[in-house]
Amino acid sequence: MPTFKITVAYDGSDYVGWQRQANGVAIQALIEDALRDLDGRDVPVAGAGRTDAGVHALGQVAAFSIARPLGPDAIVRAINASMPPAIRVLAAEEVAPAFHPRFGARQKTYRYQLWNADVMSPFERAYAWHVPGPLDVEAMRAAARLLEGRHDFAAFQATGSSVSTTEREIFASRIADRGLRTAAESAIELPTQSAIRNPQSALLSYEVTGSGFLRHMVRIIVGSLVEVGRGRQPVDWIGAVIAGCDRTRAGPTAPPHGLFLVTVDYPGSLAAGS
Amino acid sequence: MPTFKITVAYDGSDYVGWQRQANGVAIQALIEDALRDLDGRDVPVAGAGRTDAGVHALGQVAAFSIARPLGPDAIVRAINASMPPAIRVLAAEEVAPAFHPRFGARQKTYRYQLWNADVMSPFERAYAWHVPGPLDVEAMRAAARLLEGRHDFAAFQATGSSVSTTEREIFASRIADRGLRTAAESAIELPTQSAIRNPQSALLSYEVTGSGFLRHMVRIIVGSLVEVGRGRQPVDWIGAVIAGCDRTRAGPTAPPHGLFLVTVDYPGSLAAGS
Repeated sequence: MPTFKITVAYDGSDYVGWQRQANGVAIQALIEDALRDLDGRDVPVAGAGRTDAGVHALGQVAAFSIARPLGPDAIVRAINASMPPAIRVLAAEEVAPAFHPRFGARQKTYRYQLWNADVMSPFERAYAWHVPGPLDVEAMRAAARLLEGRHDFAAFQATGSSVSTTEREIFASRIADRGLRTAAESAIELPTQSAIRNPQSALLSYEVTGSGFLRHMVRIIVGSLVEVGRGRQPVDWIGAVIAGCDRTRAGPTAPPHGLFLVTVDYPGSLAAGS
Repeated sequence: MPTFKITVAYDGSDYVGWQRQANGVAIQALIEDALRDLDGRDVPVAGAGRTDAGVHALGQVAAFSIARPLGPDAIVRAINASMPPAIRVLAAEEVAPAFHPRFGARQKTYRYQLWNADVMSPFERAYAWHVPGPLDVEAMRAAARLLEGRHDFAAFQATGSSVSTTEREIFASRIADRGLRTAAESAIELPTQSAIRNPQSALLSYEVTGSGFLRHMVRIIVGSLVEVGRGRQPVDWIGAVIAGCDRTRAGPTAPPHGLFLVTVDYPGSLAAGS
């Protein structure tokens, strides 16, 4: 049976997360249900990473094998026809049967969005954490960089997790510039109306790429960076938190709805038979 | 009683529009209800423009007078405390009692978003019209410019409307560049992942500023521009449609959920007593 890799975007607001669970609707379960209808048999779907309830994805990766002879475009159309509009398969490609989206991943990138203004945007309410009040973005940026490298991230793991090692490598940990102004808006903007015409100026975006992530790791990092941004902790505190390997020393866990799984990268070619 | 001008953003997905109606929940009605609770009397709220059911606003403008002595910041907080998160007052300022948000407006700007890709984005499904297939954006851009100037826009008005004149002046009618890439995304992007990391590249944005707009005018303009983009009509056809003053010659009415009232501009100062 051919094996397919699919790339999936979803608005996680109304779901219990990627992974099938006893209660609530999971994205994995909806895709497995669609594939069972398509293939006339149970089709297990493996995902690259579990996203928690309320977490979104721009490029989650999953894989499965089906017996029915369908090309990648037909697979995209068939799954999407069964999905709610909050879930969309963006692409499919045939891959080697040994491909595993989780164990084969080289790195993952997550984005976390903050809305730093007194009033929350109606359009970002499901996609950004509302953090009003002054934030020292330069301090947050410096603190974010301290997470880069290979570290024991035990302090940034949800309590109660059990994994064989809490060491991970972070390749990039960055706070993007404020004012995510679009080219289009810049081109046609009247200078006096920037606050309304460019509401994105309140959006702060954190993006982190690493070899792997512990449970709640990105959200605890963001909660900690906000402590620094609010001036409650100095920049160097992040280094001390890493060194302490103690969850209780890190900041609070940021809410799930600001988090996006952006991409999952794999080494080399994934072509079937390669 | 002091008169206040407020700027309001709303996600119109779940509302019957700005204006109070017999059936369904209107944004104006929710604000009037909040002000009645605040002021202990009926407080009529006048808006700058009616937005239809499903249409959004980044900067709708409204005005009202209240007896209770409250400053602008307190008014923002008090109204927002009563609103669902889909509706947010962004700002308030005291203005001269003669201020009228509709009759005093110098110009309004609307934006219409199209999603031009095979698969609709889960994140834009409530904020952009899904138009799959090839679009000749340069032709659409040229056609859009033909609408600039003072014209009789009778062909771009919903049938059954009755207004004293269908002449309006369009100051700018532009299709923005594709690839509304944010500065943040550009800064941290890996070059091989642009399709997923920059899903905005499928977003086409039309923006139009004019002295006033007829009912459904922007949506009929967009429906007509898409006819040109799909190659069903040549660029010059737009000029012929304007000249014909016949609704049946223009394109279809684009759906409401891609439309945003962006800003309403007023001449000079609005300061109270000025």
